[in-house]
Amino acid sequence: MVEPATDTKSAAKVVPLLKDELDIVIPTIRNLDFLEMWRPFFEPYHLIIVQDGDPSKTIKVPEGFDYELYNRNDINRILGPKASCISFKDSACRCFGYMVSKKKYIFTIDDDCFVAKDPSGKAINALEQHIKNILSPSTPFFFNTLYDPYRDGADFVRGYPFSLREGVPTAVSHGLWLNIPDYDAPTQLVKPLERNTRYVDAVLTIPKGTLFPMCGMNLCFDRDLIGPAMYFGLMGDGQPIGRYDDMWAGWCTKVICDHLGLGVKTGLPYIYHSKASNPFVNLKKEYKGIFWQEEIIPFFQAATLPKDCTTVQKCYIELSKQVKEKLGKVDPYFDKLADAMVTWIDAWDELNPSGASAKVSNGQA
Amino acid sequence: MVEPATDTKSAAKVVPLLKDELDIVIPTIRNLDFLEMWRPFFEPYHLIIVQDGDPSKTIKVPEGFDYELYNRNDINRILGPKASCISFKDSACRCFGYMVSKKKYIFTIDDDCFVAKDPSGKAINALEQHIKNILSPSTPFFFNTLYDPYRDGADFVRGYPFSLREGVPTAVSHGLWLNIPDYDAPTQLVKPLERNTRYVDAVLTIPKGTLFPMCGMNLCFDRDLIGPAMYFGLMGDGQPIGRYDDMWAGWCTKVICDHLGLGVKTGLPYIYHSKASNPFVNLKKEYKGIFWQEEIIPFFQAATLPKDCTTVQKCYIELSKQVKEKLGKVDPYFDKLADAMVTWIDAWDELNPSGASAKVSNGQA
Repeated sequence: MVEPATDTKSAAKVVPLLKDELDIVIPTIRNLDFLEMWRPFFEPYHLIIVQDGDPSKTIKVPEGFDYELYNRNDINRILGPKASCISFKDSACRCFGYMVSKKKYIFTIDDDCFVAKDPSGKAINALEQHIKNILSPSTPFFFNTLYDPYRDGADFVRGYPFSLREGVPTAVSHGLWLNIPDYDAPTQLVKPLERNTRYVDAVLTIPKGTLFPMCGMNLCFDRDLIGPAMYFGLMGDGQPIGRYDDMWAGWCTKVICDHLGLGVKTGLPYIYHSKASNPFVNLKKEYKGIFWQEEIIPFFQAATLPKDCTTVQKCYIELSKQVKEKLGKVDPYFDKLADAMVTWIDAWDELNPSGASAKVSNGQA
Repeated sequence: MVEPATDTKSAAKVVPLLKDELDIVIPTIRNLDFLEMWRPFFEPYHLIIVQDGDPSKTIKVPEGFDYELYNRNDINRILGPKASCISFKDSACRCFGYMVSKKKYIFTIDDDCFVAKDPSGKAINALEQHIKNILSPSTPFFFNTLYDPYRDGADFVRGYPFSLREGVPTAVSHGLWLNIPDYDAPTQLVKPLERNTRYVDAVLTIPKGTLFPMCGMNLCFDRDLIGPAMYFGLMGDGQPIGRYDDMWAGWCTKVICDHLGLGVKTGLPYIYHSKASNPFVNLKKEYKGIFWQEEIIPFFQAATLPKDCTTVQKCYIELSKQVKEKLGKVDPYFDKLADAMVTWIDAWDELNPSGASAKVSNGQA
């Protein structure tokens, strides 16, 4: 049995890396007591809390945390008609937090995620590991069998081309989960008792051209490099689907990272995921996605972006056109989603006027 | 500091999986005392020892092992003029063992590799783990963030397409090394004291379209599925290059596995690699390869095989043509190598007459 860390107060005093350059985004419908366990690691940072559901409800945040909180009324007020692109009654609403942040980096975490322990029993500072991941390069063009070559005690192995050893900037760090694994409803139903107890001490770059299922539970990214692609789609209230918000963002993000020559890492850090969501509720949210993903994934696997897509925004608008053209026939939902993708970029550029013209170099191999 | 297992006699009695279907191939120039530590794990299996260098020297094999041994005279006698495709004074000669085997599976290991310990201190039965890897499917078409989904306690995560969960047959299991990492000469020179002490408890499929540096030190493969692609090239005596034998085999193998819809796994098991080879000697062997790989790797990344290449042999012959056409201009060595690739297939088919016509289904996505 794997257990969460129960005493993080005694954790070594942390040097808060990127303290003024990173926001922690938390979507929630409840009081944020879970922050108590994260206090030694998160307290130095600014939090952006996106309150989902009833805006008249008051969310309690433990004392000492520096935060701003947005509920649905705030979102509607700030975005006006463009608020239609932000999901309601679904944790997909978190992407509003990415949009209003003014920082370079975002870390987002679910409120049922606690501090995990490494095999030696030490509380894992997940944020610190994400920052390490994101500040060191990625290696998407060739696989390194000893995993992240930039980690202490590791390097590129024999046969790794020297021209590729500089790597490329890392845009995304995808962390994992001990205890409750991130399974879909059918797998939850079949394996209700399965727990993830395996601590895999590795970080690796997901190769160029390979898609992956990105989970939004424990995720860090560079807003400047990839922010506008981190749209969590239309889920929840009034939509035919749920629990595909992070998947959608992951597919779009990976295609755009591959096009722009940016890296995506997965592996460490682990958080402790405490509670399995209800598989029956999940099945209802997911079942269309389970069909649709059989067409969506080949679509993204085949998607290519033209050379003149040199910014994330341009890439994303181009992708929205392809979604409309190719996935529109799967279900009218994708027409609506493609429109929302455009609205999202409009809203992003409105709130981030300088970012709209920010270019990243096209580092394709 | 990481240490090898020093007492494997007390290792739990092993059920020798695939006992009659697997050969262990060992290239060597010295007495095989290293087998003593492997006795509980290897003794039930048949060994094929490929003696390199002076054929008049006698190689001592510890008592109790069942083996056949081939020296250069044997290779020349068995293959006649076709023996020219088998390297001399280089461990690339091991691939002769793959050719004369009559078994479905091959495990190959270097004679400076000892039994490693897992984090709990238990001696690792490397062969058993390879067999687990190779008997369970691979997942080259989409990345699973919890690594091998077929392992106990793991599965496919949310967002993994159900149509891909059956996986594809695994052709190759690539194991890793504790203690001395498999570094090239420049890295050895720069980091003479670096040791690999990190035990990463994972097995993963290398995605389709991604090349990797395949090391021949601790490697298992399915001869029926991929054997004819496991040619270790022309290295050593009379050749301008060394230490690229396994790399060459790895590039060819991966391109062919991707074409035929077969899987390649890397990760567990670890062996304990005892002795760093001399970096000065290595540099002399490697330096042309260090230049050449900058052109070879893009060549293999771009290589495609026509649909009518439905057997490994047909794929390999086609690849030899492309090598001649596209790499011949890099150096005349590649002309010679392309010819040797054809000779290798001729020799393979001569020694494996039924295998010559064996077809594998084309499982491309």
